[in-house]
Amino acid sequence: MLELIPAKPKSLDRYIESVGEEPIETIRSLAAKLDDARILHVNATSFGGGVAELLATAVPLMRGLGLDCDWQVMFGSDDFFNVTKTMHNALQGMEVAWTPQMEKTYLDKVIDNVARLDTDYDFVVIHDPQPAAMLHILEYETQQLPRGKWIWRCHIDTSDPFLQVADFLFPMIEPYDAAVFTMSDFVPSGYGLPPVTLIPPCIDPIALKNVRLNPATVRAIWESYDVDYDRPTLCQISRFDPWKDPLGVIDAYRIAKEEVPDLQLVLAGSMATDDPEGMHYLHRTEQHAAGDPDVYIFTNAHGVGSIEVNAFQTGADVVIQKSIREGFGLTVSEALWKRTPVVAGNVGGIRMQIEDGEGGFLVDSIEQCGEACIALLKDPTQRMARGNHAHEFVRTRYVTTVLLEKWLNLFVELSTPD
Amino acid sequence: MLELIPAKPKSLDRYIESVGEEPIETIRSLAAKLDDARILHVNATSFGGGVAELLATAVPLMRGLGLDCDWQVMFGSDDFFNVTKTMHNALQGMEVAWTPQMEKTYLDKVIDNVARLDTDYDFVVIHDPQPAAMLHILEYETQQLPRGKWIWRCHIDTSDPFLQVADFLFPMIEPYDAAVFTMSDFVPSGYGLPPVTLIPPCIDPIALKNVRLNPATVRAIWESYDVDYDRPTLCQISRFDPWKDPLGVIDAYRIAKEEVPDLQLVLAGSMATDDPEGMHYLHRTEQHAAGDPDVYIFTNAHGVGSIEVNAFQTGADVVIQKSIREGFGLTVSEALWKRTPVVAGNVGGIRMQIEDGEGGFLVDSIEQCGEACIALLKDPTQRMARGNHAHEFVRTRYVTTVLLEKWLNLFVELSTPD
Repeated sequence: MLELIPAKPKSLDRYIESVGEEPIETIRSLAAKLDDARILHVNATSFGGGVAELLATAVPLMRGLGLDCDWQVMFGSDDFFNVTKTMHNALQGMEVAWTPQMEKTYLDKVIDNVARLDTDYDFVVIHDPQPAAMLHILEYETQQLPRGKWIWRCHIDTSDPFLQVADFLFPMIEPYDAAVFTMSDFVPSGYGLPPVTLIPPCIDPIALKNVRLNPATVRAIWESYDVDYDRPTLCQISRFDPWKDPLGVIDAYRIAKEEVPDLQLVLAGSMATDDPEGMHYLHRTEQHAAGDPDVYIFTNAHGVGSIEVNAFQTGADVVIQKSIREGFGLTVSEALWKRTPVVAGNVGGIRMQIEDGEGGFLVDSIEQCGEACIALLKDPTQRMARGNHAHEFVRTRYVTTVLLEKWLNLFVELSTPD
Repeated sequence: MLELIPAKPKSLDRYIESVGEEPIETIRSLAAKLDDARILHVNATSFGGGVAELLATAVPLMRGLGLDCDWQVMFGSDDFFNVTKTMHNALQGMEVAWTPQMEKTYLDKVIDNVARLDTDYDFVVIHDPQPAAMLHILEYETQQLPRGKWIWRCHIDTSDPFLQVADFLFPMIEPYDAAVFTMSDFVPSGYGLPPVTLIPPCIDPIALKNVRLNPATVRAIWESYDVDYDRPTLCQISRFDPWKDPLGVIDAYRIAKEEVPDLQLVLAGSMATDDPEGMHYLHRTEQHAAGDPDVYIFTNAHGVGSIEVNAFQTGADVVIQKSIREGFGLTVSEALWKRTPVVAGNVGGIRMQIEDGEGGFLVDSIEQCGEACIALLKDPTQRMARGNHAHEFVRTRYVTTVLLEKWLNLFVELSTPD
């Protein structure tokens, strides 16, 4: 067996307060249909990154539902992870140098992992490219497919991949029983993929980043950062890089400030200390703010973590997500969940979250962004109405329980004879 | 003028939710009696340390009451601050090498400061030893006392000072109109001090460390540290040093765990990165825990800040403060405010907080500590009753509004003709 990550079963009861009884009932009845199903998740790391975070939440909940759900992490090597990082970039569209030696490094390591893999499961979910070749290798070695249903879960945007790498990887996905993508835009064309199911990512409403904070707590957190809780405030939570356009956010804030003179802006994002590019762009953002005392720029170096992000999203009058390019953009649903309307770039998965839910406005320019902020800042009733509506919208589409339901649905479908 | 620290007026209204209307009314009527009084606080630093923290809260509130309250910070030098650090240690009882040159360094710098001091105030509060000689120097230079009332506020325990330094400092306190100490035990004997007023320190109920957190928030914070919120838990919030006896806390936890097998212990404290002694004692504490998976040891390096401390104090079943020696020990009132009973060492100001309020037990040994924890862990009704009672007790004695009332009372008394 690969490295088995221990996971204590966790009850869904704790979600009732945030999502209501009904979704929990639906999930329980789906789990009952799956009876004693054995489920395995395989990915490349137990810590760090969105996939590990997702599994750390989902696996204990599946166990809490009485399902026999395991999480195994493949073992790698520096060479292997260098290759899979290159694959990852290539699948997202970057032109890379790709060699037969890299394919060999990749396949050799997956073969090693397959040799130690316990395949006695009813459902095997393989996450992302690192372990993707497993099923192909199993079939090739044993001349038959293993007994369970195999699902490839692709978390990345493979809509426009670098072909040399895509042509290597995607044919190996063919033997899977199903493929899961985040949104239809991410699915590559031209390959014989198995039936595709769309499962968007989700926010966890009971995690520190999204749990309901009472107003006194939000105020105390703002004041601990010396931000005035009583003044109108815009906020963007994002890394400091050109695709999130923090400079454009500052310009939009300046437009809005002409109409709302006591306006404040909070820009917060986490920074890797070993990311010189990020530090450079943070510095450019600070320069662009030009010492404006009403613009606050925070990073994890200021102690900004989950609860602080929560407090800024909860307390802001309008959240901005002025992305130029975006995968899904889950910060949008994070803000909407807190009943804060969002003004966001008209790109990627942001469209699914705003347009359909009307929790704010999609914008294509700095001017539009500034104007949309002004409209919302001047109309508290509209803010409240949109915020409440959007909270409901997110509750039925982008929270943990919805994701769980979609997965169990897929398992039930796959176990139903055609 | 010395360095003037800007402070925006802050309304007391925000305290109503935590302390009720009555104390606010009392404070407002006292402030009204003081009319247009000009008040000055002088200390040695605008940032870092308890005094700066206290003034950062108190000065804006005094301004919010319509008082003309300023905060000026004296300027110093490395030499000067080295001398005042030695003074500080000596006043707390440490034997130090004290020379005439050190007295000269001290006095020269205070003289420089006095030359730039604006004394046109009705009340001047001088904090701690650094600026203490100011009044003596003013009198000596001008042969008369300035027009206002002068108060020396001593924040440290000078009950048993190193005499050579005490004999230098305390005679210069004589011309003050009043001296304020934290508790009667801290007042040195044998000097002709002005009338003494006792003002204990306080917790700020609306600050992040003490603001009310809802249960879902507390749970999410615990879970973000992987601590089980559903199991019985003891907690001590303290630096890792012998005077806080973290090893004794672990031993007491072990005694209690024999009776309460699923007991957990959380030890959390902040660490200066340049404190090798602290690191050493943290390491000893970790060794003493001997890998027990139910003992959690956290520092600021794990991201433990005000809100995490708040969550651990709020969610624990019993808070321990097993100090061997203690000044006031405000962590006790912090826990009691959160309605969590406290088992604490029978020393220093802890006695004032526990004995009178019955929010827990005073203990003299590890065994007593363990037994007291068991008694509380096994009796939720007692825990709740003591917790609620203690919250009320703290509300009337150790919160910001009480401190403000005591200060205004002192000003009113000083301005009343004998």
